[in-house]
Parts: sequence; C-alpha cells; structure tokens
Amino acid sequence: MAVPPSTYPRRLLPLFLGLFQGALLLFFALFVTYDEPSAQVEDTNLVANQVYSTFPFFQDIQVMLVVGLGLLLTFLPRYGFSALTHNFLLLNFSMQWALVLQGLLHHFHHGQIHLDLHRLLISVFAAVTVLISVGAILGRASPCQLLVMATCEIPIYLASEWVIVTCLGVLDVGGTITIHVFSCYFGLGVSKALFGATQQPLHPKETPTTSSDLMSLVGTLILWVFWPSFVAVPCQPGDAQHRAILNTLLAMSAGAITTVVASSLLERDGKLSPGHLQNGSLAGGVAIGAVADMAVPPAAALALGSLSAAACVLGFRFLTPLLARKLTLHDQCGIHNLHGLPGILGAAASVVAVLVAPKDTPGSQPSQLSPALCQAAGLAVALGAPLLAGLLTGAALRLPCLARPPERLCFDDSLYFKIHDQAESPGPDGSAEEEALALKEQV
Amino acid sequence: MAVPPSTYPRRLLPLFLGLFQGALLLFFALFVTYDEPSAQVEDTNLVANQVYSTFPFFQDIQVMLVVGLGLLLTFLPRYGFSALTHNFLLLNFSMQWALVLQGLLHHFHHGQIHLDLHRLLISVFAAVTVLISVGAILGRASPCQLLVMATCEIPIYLASEWVIVTCLGVLDVGGTITIHVFSCYFGLGVSKALFGATQQPLHPKETPTTSSDLMSLVGTLILWVFWPSFVAVPCQPGDAQHRAILNTLLAMSAGAITTVVASSLLERDGKLSPGHLQNGSLAGGVAIGAVADMAVPPAAALALGSLSAAACVLGFRFLTPLLARKLTLHDQCGIHNLHGLPGILGAAASVVAVLVAPKDTPGSQPSQLSPALCQAAGLAVALGAPLLAGLLTGAALRLPCLARPPERLCFDDSLYFKIHDQAESPGPDGSAEEEALALKEQV
Amino acid sequence: MAVPPSTYPRRLLPLFLGLFQGALLLFFALFVTYDEPSAQVEDTNLVANQVYSTFPFFQDIQVMLVVGLGLLLTFLPRYGFSALTHNFLLLNFSMQWALVLQGLLHHFHHGQIHLDLHRLLISVFAAVTVLISVGAILGRASPCQLLVMATCEIPIYLASEWVIVTCLGVLDVGGTITIHVFSCYFGLGVSKALFGATQQPLHPKETPTTSSDLMSLVGTLILWVFWPSFVAVPCQPGDAQHRAILNTLLAMSAGAITTVVASSLLERDGKLSPGHLQNGSLAGGVAIGAVADMAVPPAAALALGSLSAAACVLGFRFLTPLLARKLTLHDQCGIHNLHGLPGILGAAASVVAVLVAPKDTPGSQPSQLSPALCQAAGLAVALGAPLLAGLLTGAALRLPCLARPPERLCFDDSLYFKIHDQAESPGPDGSAEEEALALKEQV
Repeated sequence: MAVPPSTYPRRLLPLFLGLFQGALLLFFALFVTYDEPSAQVEDTNLVANQVYSTFPFFQDIQVMLVVGLGLLLTFLPRYGFSALTHNFLLLNFSMQWALVLQGLLHHFHHGQIHLDLHRLLISVFAAVTVLISVGAILGRASPCQLLVMATCEIPIYLASEWVIVTCLGVLDVGGTITIHVFSCYFGLGVSKALFGATQQPLHPKETPTTSSDLMSLVGTLILWVFWPSFVAVPCQPGDAQHRAILNTLLAMSAGAITTVVASSLLERDGKLSPGHLQNGSLAGGVAIGAVADMAVPPAAALALGSLSAAACVLGFRFLTPLLARKLTLHDQCGIHNLHGLPGILGAAASVVAVLVAPKDTPGSQPSQLSPALCQAAGLAVALGAPLLAGLLTGAALRLPCLARPPERLCFDDSLYFKIHDQAESPGPDGSAEEEALALKEQV
Repeated sequence: MAVPPSTYPRRLLPLFLGLFQGALLLFFALFVTYDEPSAQVEDTNLVANQVYSTFPFFQDIQVMLVVGLGLLLTFLPRYGFSALTHNFLLLNFSMQWALVLQGLLHHFHHGQIHLDLHRLLISVFAAVTVLISVGAILGRASPCQLLVMATCEIPIYLASEWVIVTCLGVLDVGGTITIHVFSCYFGLGVSKALFGATQQPLHPKETPTTSSDLMSLVGTLILWVFWPSFVAVPCQPGDAQHRAILNTLLAMSAGAITTVVASSLLERDGKLSPGHLQNGSLAGGVAIGAVADMAVPPAAALALGSLSAAACVLGFRFLTPLLARKLTLHDQCGIHNLHGLPGILGAAASVVAVLVAPKDTPGSQPSQLSPALCQAAGLAVALGAPLLAGLLTGAALRLPCLARPPERLCFDDSLYFKIHDQAESPGPDGSAEEEALALKEQV
Repeated sequence: MAVPPSTYPRRLLPLFLGLFQGALLLFFALFVTYDEPSAQVEDTNLVANQVYSTFPFFQDIQVMLVVGLGLLLTFLPRYGFSALTHNFLLLNFSMQWALVLQGLLHHFHHGQIHLDLHRLLISVFAAVTVLISVGAILGRASPCQLLVMATCEIPIYLASEWVIVTCLGVLDVGGTITIHVFSCYFGLGVSKALFGATQQPLHPKETPTTSSDLMSLVGTLILWVFWPSFVAVPCQPGDAQHRAILNTLLAMSAGAITTVVASSLLERDGKLSPGHLQNGSLAGGVAIGAVADMAVPPAAALALGSLSAAACVLGFRFLTPLLARKLTLHDQCGIHNLHGLPGILGAAASVVAVLVAPKDTPGSQPSQLSPALCQAAGLAVALGAPLLAGLLTGAALRLPCLARPPERLCFDDSLYFKIHDQAESPGPDGSAEEEALALKEQV
C-alpha cells in the first residue's frame, strides 16, 4: 500500500538536504580555503609526515563508522537498507554541518577558514555523536526527523565539548565523556520526548533473524578491530599513543571474554544472546577512552574492560526493561548499555586515575578546580546538558511535518526505498511483474 | 538441466588460464628480477620509507577492488558468486597481463625488468579498467569472454594511457580520464558489438532482492571509504597529496547527499532507489580524480561532487533507458552513469581548472598544445579509442567457441559453480540428497 | 527441544572463562607494566616511528583474523553465528593466554614484564595456530572443548616455535612451518583422537547454501587482500620487507588463477567448486611464508603459489576423502589442504632456497647443522610434535564434562545462541510469539 503523498510529505527530505547542500556550497565558496602550498622542502616533508601519521587512522575510523556501525545497525531484519543508508547519510550531513559550525565558531575571526585533515577528523568525531544518538530511536523515526535531530545535536555537542575540554580541561582522549556519554543521554532525551508516555509495544518486525544478527555481528567485529585507531588518533605521537593503543586492545579483549561470561550466566539455559555479544564486546572500548593515554597499569585496562562489558550485559538484561516499564523510556539499540553505562564507568575511572597520578602529570588544566573534580564536572555536563537538549529536540521532532512513520510501517525499508520482496530468491519462474504484484499486496 | 559438454565448451577456461599462467611463469623466469638489495643504510631507510608510504594505500586499493567492487556487483540475486569470483579472477589475470606488457613495452631495452611495489600498483590500475568495463555485460557473458576482453583491453589501455599522459601531458592523477572514461566507453563498445541490434528483454533473475541490494550497498560503502586512497596514491607526497585527499573526501560527501536529493526527487512517491544510492554515492570520486591535486578551492570539489552525483542519478533515470531504446545499447550495471558521465564532467572541470590556473603551474607539458587543449584532447582520445577498440573486441567475443551463455541461463551462478539450492536453509529434515535432487530438477 | 541442564553442562563455559579472566587480571596486576615513558625527544620519535611502522600491519592482521577468517568459517549454513563468535572468543582467549605464557617463559627473570605492541603481535601469531586447528573439528565440538584445546595448544606452540626458530635457527618469516604446518597437524591429531575410529556420516546441516558460501568467499577475499601484511610484519624494514610483500602478492595471484584452472579441470562438467575457491586462493600465501623475504626470484614465488594452489585443490578432491575412508580422519574445513600441503611445499621450497643461496646469506644459524638440514629438521618438528600433542589433547577432549554436542545438534547455532528461526523474514503478519513457537517445535 503506497502512502498517499498528501499524508506523507515526501518532498521535505530532498528540499531540506538540497537547501543545506546549496548553503554549504555558498559558505565554502566564500570562506573556506586550503592551506597555502609549502614553500620549503622541510615544510613539504612535514605535511607528508602528517598525512602518513594521520590518514591511516582516519581511514580506519571511516571504516568503523560507515561499514562497521552501519552493519551493526542492520539487526532489524526488514530495516537493514534504511539503517545502513540513514547512518551513511547522517555521517555526511553531520560532518559537513560540523565543518561549517566549527569554522564559524573557532575560525571566523581569522577571515579565512583553512581546511585540513585534522579539521575534517574533528568534524567526523562530532558526527559520531549523531550516529550514536540515533540508535535510541532507530526504526521509528523518519529521515527528516533524524536530520533535524542532527542539526540540533551538532551545535550542542560543539558547545558542550568546548566547555568540557577547553574550559574544564577534562582529559578524555577517546571521547568517553564528550562523545559517548553525551550522545547517549542526548539520544535518550530525544526518545523520551518523542515517544512520550506510552510504552512501545513489541513490533513484529523488531525481532532479529539469524541472518540479520549475523550481519550485525560482522559490524561489531569491524568496530572491535578498528577501535584502537579511534582512541589513539588524537594522542600525542610516541609513548602516549602507544599506551592508548595497548590499553584499548587490552580493554576490548577483556570485554569480549567477559561478555560471553556474563551473557551465559544470565540466561537460564546458558545460551548466549546475540544482542549481548554485539554490544558487550565493544563496551571496553567505550570505557577505556578517558584513561587510555594516561599512565594507568595494564591490569587497570583489563579490569575496566571487564567491568564495562559486565555492566553492558547487565544493562540489557535488567536496566533496559526497567527503564521501559518505569520511565516508558524507549532505547531501540540499547545505547544506554553500550555508551551510557560504560561511559560513566570510564569517567569514574578517569577521576581515580587523575587522583592517583603524580602531581606533575602532563595535561593542561586551565581551570582552578582540582583535576579530579574537573573530570567529575565534565561528566556532569555530559550527562545533564544533552539530556535537557535532547528533550527539547525530541519535542521539536513531534512536529507533524517531519513525518514520523505510522506504527504499522515502522522498521520497514519499503517505506523509504524502492525495494523488492523480502523473499531471498525470485524463484526459477517468477517474473518481475509477479514480484511487484506480490509486494503491492503484501504491504 | 546440465548443459551437455558438447554444446558448452567447459575445457576452454582452464586451458586458456593454464597456458597464460605457464607463459607468465616462463616470462618471469627469463626476464623479471627484484632490485638488488641496498648496500647502504640510507638506501635501506629509503626503501623502508617508500614501503611505509605506499603499502597502506596499496592495501586500501586492493580492498576496494577485491571486496568493495566485488560486493557492489552482487546485486544480481542469483549471480553473486559469479560476480565476486569473476571480478577476483579478472583482477589477477589483468594485473599479471599488465605486468608482462608493461615490462615488454617500457623496460625491455634494459635487459632485465625490475619489479617493485610501484610497478605492481600501475598494473593494478590497468586491471581496474577491465573490472569497470565488465559491468556493461555482467551476467550475460561467459568467463572465457571476459578473459578475452581483458586480454584485448589491457594493451589498448596501456597505449591510450601512454598517449594521454606521456604524449599529451594530460593531468589526471585519479584516473578520471585515463581509467574511468576509457573503460566506460570500452565496455559500451563491447556490449554494443556483442549484443548487436536486439534489445535485451528483462530477465526474471535480473531483479535485485533486498538481500542482494544490501550486499551491494555494503560494497559501495567500502569503495566510498577507501576512494581517497585510490586518488591520492600517485600524488606527490606533501601538499598535493593532502589536497587530493581533502578534495576527494569533499566531493564524495557532497555526492552522497546529492544522490539522496536527486533520487528522491525523481521518483513519484519520493522513495529512494537502491541502484541510485549504490552508484551515485561514488560518482563524486570518479569526477574529482582529474583535478584532485590541483589548487582548486574546496567549494569546487563540493560542486563537482554534487554535479556528478546528480548526473549519475539522472543518467540512470533517463539516459540508460533512452540508450537501450534508441541505440539498443545494453549497460547492465550502468557504467555509463557511474564512470562515463562523471568522468566527462571531471575532464571538463580539469579543462577549466587548467585554464584558470596561474601560468607557472607545476606539471610537465611535453606537447606544444596549450594545457587546456591537451586535457580536452586527452578526453577525446579516452572517448574515441576505447569505443572503437571495444566494438572490435565485442565482435571477437561473438566467436561461438567463447561460449556465451544462453539467455535462459544468464544471471545464474549454477552455470559456473557447483552450488546448492538458493533456499536459505536446508530445513530441519532436508537431506543433502534431496537437495541435490531438487537442484537437478530446478535447473 | 532444549537440552536439559542436567545432561548439558551449561555452567562450565562461564566458569572456565571467568576464572581465566580473573587469574589473568591478577597476573597482570602483579607482573605486567608498560615501558617507562621516554625521557628524550629522540626516544619519543623512535616510539612514534615504531608505532607507525607496526600498527597498520597489526590492524591488517586483526581484520584478517577477526573478520576474514571468521567469515571464511561461516560456510556452514546454520552455524555461522557460532563460527564467527567462537573464532572471536578463541582469538581473545588464546592471545591473552599466550601473553601470560610468553611473560612467564621469556621474561620472568627480569622481574617485570614490559608489554608493547610487538609482544602483543607475537601473542596474536600464537593465537592464529588455535584458529587454524579448530577448523578440523568445526561444528562438532563445544566451546568448552575448543577452549581446552586452546589451553593445550598455546604452550606447545610456544615450545615448538622456540625449538624451531631459536634452537634450530629455521628461517620462516611468514610462519609457514611454525604456524601453518604446526597447527594443521595439531588439529588433525585432535580430530583423530576426538572422533576415534568411526567415520562421520554426512550431516544434513553440513551442506553449504549459496548464501553461506558467498559469505565465506567474502572472508577468503579479505584474507587474500591482507595476507601480505601477515607475512611482511616480522621482516626487517627495507629490502627484505619489500621483497616479502612482492613475493606474497605474486604467489597469491598465481594461486588464485591456478585454483580456477585446477578446480575446473577436476570436475566432469567443468563447474568450479566454491570450497576450492575459498581455500585454494589462499594456499599461495601459506606456502610463500618460509621464503618470502629470501632472495628468491619472482618466478619462484609464482611457481610456488601455483603449485600450492594445485596441491590444495587436489587435496580437497582426492586426499580428504581418502583420509576419511582409510584413516577415518575427519577434517571439516580441509585444513590439511589449505595449511598442511602448502605448508610442506613451502618448507621444501625453503630447503631449496637455502641450498642455492650464496654462503654469506644473512640469517642467524645458531645450530651446528647446515642451514638446509635445519629447515628440514624444523619441518619434522612441526609435523611430529603437534601430531602427538594433538592426539593427547584430543583424548583429553573426550572427557564427558566438556560436553561434546550430540550428533543431532552438531552444526547448529541454536545449541549455543538464543537465535530465531532461520526463515529470512518474519512475514508481514508473523508475531514474535508465533516465531518462538515455531522455533520450539522445530528444534
């Protein structure tokens, strides 16, 4: 059944995106340039070395976000195409939007904005927050709603990151506080405001199949492999970066094993839950970010990885149903378990790490507060600000013009894509016409 | 129904490939060596640095071609295994064949051919042209036909690349003209000559399923992520390479968003077409190649990316059906939309970029023509030469001994592979014997 | 049908893993630290350069093992989730276990164990042996059995590697002898002892589907692309590493083409077998490891790649059925064809390469034997020691408490995972309750 254009505003998405792309082009034409070519040979070598030391990390992060995270979200069996495409679209939109805002905020007083790989990387980090937050409402929101959400979240992230890192001097190389905790509570705020007080019933298309669970697990594994690059790229080259890589590897390895332990213990028959594996294996990477480059012992990385994976699995088993029941809080992908709880654990670990660190620890502390207090204050900002902003954003997303899909058509690719029957094979004698007919009758 | 060996010449493929591999071995044994080991410590460091600066890019490109492009071609639901395997086989065959020809053409007068990573990379670039051209006839040609096509295309590519880059001095770091435009028109020429004057009817196995479209989209995303490596690897290290990476990223990001806009606007109900997404998202990367390392402003990269994505989507919607109807030109994967139109746009952009560039621009111009005229002449060569050569090659592919598959068995893995029933699961009580039986009856 | 907890000991897995993870944490807390931060700027640059020269290779290898090998093992249509998860779990477990043993064996006398990326890499190599050996018994062993197998195999590998490389001075940069031959015969020993004298009947769930074969082929392609990193990472930077990369690329390219030739010739109707492609394409990489960095001519790399691919395909066609019939030797993934035969070929090639090398060849030869004899002795150790140890390990795996799955439930994800019906789509009106019901009835 095709939704009639009168009730479902199909033209909003291209209009919104087209206007955005046009405005961006204008902005770039007026204000953005590349750096002047280096005049000296040494400068050329310097640029070449910067490219060689940053670009492989950058590519790893792109693979994580576009392929890994995209596949992780394909666990909804009839929504894989939407999950992959919306994730890709939001990454591009948010990255460009962050480039504009960054330019306006930080660099406008220099007249020209000089674009380089480092600035692109920071914009990609900003976009990550959107990709995470979306997990809370995956499958129940229209692309327009997601784009408006991204439009709101990016400036709030940039402001909150400025407060946390620049003003408070919080140490958070892997984005545990600034990215993971922030985006989790923003997403939960949006979900709460958007879906209101009614508990969402279990949708028949919400249950993963073996095949969609397998694709999602492949996404997890891709994220798992490249996570050290995500944590290590902003580090000082040398020992700090080396330590960040090792700590992340240890935390993620311990997290993977602990996930199996926890998931197996929690189920009566000892079977593992695919959802636990898909998320718990990554919890160690979320938590380690805040302390990865600090002089923490390897055992601490292992412990933090294990603890956060256990928290993630316990969250899926007990907290998510509880939040759904008591607070009617809907969290489709369980972002609170993968990003919220491990993020808070990681922030707590960073408070302890700063407390026990020798006083002459490197790390700029522009604020007058003690470093440990700063870390705690940073966490508080990353909890409160996005929750509030998310609630407001979610309220805005209720605007009817943004076309929230009707419940019956949630979790369904065919609302947004011209795709064919779910049946795996057209059959030896099936014609395309028959298929189209079958599709029509079925929807 | 098994095709009887008398009518379908099964032994040609191993014979052809076996002879080729044997001849290659002989050629390598007689003429090819590695460089002498470096005697000096500085030389060793130099080699090590060359490896570190080239090898990560090389691996990225291998992932693009073997995994990314392979998956992109799996959109035909019953032809995924063939698409992936033929792509892989053709890459290896064409790369080795290009190594031989390169050795013969450029280096024979030195007596010995010295193999290094750089030379392998150039051979891989040559192989790319075959992998692109094949898209025009995917699913309707036998492996033998594809190998003969590769055998013809590689020498023509090397000659045309020599004319365009060495004689005319065309600037084309990302292969927009030399690779993309060339291979598109070669493929179209082959398709025209091979399938002649009859329009191909829609084959029942030609319609993608959700699952095959999803796999194909994953291929697109892998290509999208690693495309900057493809464009940047031949650049001068330093500013030019940095700029090439940034320009490619911008063009591909703008292209991704514009694809969504264009696809959504073109359909009556605003739904996105998977084919548009799979191809349009990459059009920016095709177009930017010719100007990526030039001193173009970032806004130009954005504009070029948007424009080429729009051209690609419009091509799918209007031009491909038109060409099929008016010229009975069959283009299975729409390579004219992904490689032809964006390639021509990119070439046009390079003409403009060279025109507005300051006169003391770097770049060797061995010919007497003005730089802009050279770029235009290069485009003309990359349009005309492969079209003619493709028509001749396609005529050769009509030889009956090359075993073009009968229409009924097109787009079907079971013609080339011992694979099992398409049914996803053998069922709880299905035995392998029953399956084999079912397969036999079905084919 | 749920296996009652009384007969299937579900709690052993979390108990075993939990105790291991706890003990590891204790061990790390007591003995393991990172290197002291560098005091000098030059030291910092040195560390940074080491990270940049090792980390991209390390990531490539992680992708190979976690994603590539994992996907390769998903060819069993109802066992994909288990294959992927068990592979991932075993990698983490074995890597950590190897870290502990390495620390104990090599470094305990220094008081503290200093962890760095190089040491992690060596542990990952140790873990590879487990991942390969498991292939012999894939689908018929419980996770507990696999973990016990890993527990036994890692120390035996470390001892055998010490004998082969340190005592005998065997040259084997790519692990052909120490990793591939070793793990193959260990796995075969385990399989022989575990499954005893009875030939395993063909299980109905053992037959791949097109879809599972396709996933597995994607895994092969990922392994194929990144294999040069696996071989080249332990090489001396500079010429040796450059040569190792080139030799591996040539061997794998020739292997890919030869696989098609051999597979096509072996079947009566000339169709290619997916299993041959999935394995034969990689045989060249296995074989080239022992000689990759030596001064062998490029033609030798091509010949070795072709020969090993042909041996692999012939092994699948003739040797595996023969071993199954005559020796009742069960080899689920055909590891003898992919790792055993090519490994022996590679070792033989290394004997020849050492024989014909000039006498002042670099390479430490601590033993008194001639280099060629050392290589042969190394192969003998890598054949005999693991076979014996594997037989003993396999006998231990017969302990009833390790819960070997009953034949009826082999090759089935639903024994270990809470997964849903194999049916691709829940259907437009299928409720989760109905699905759960269907699942219950079906199992």
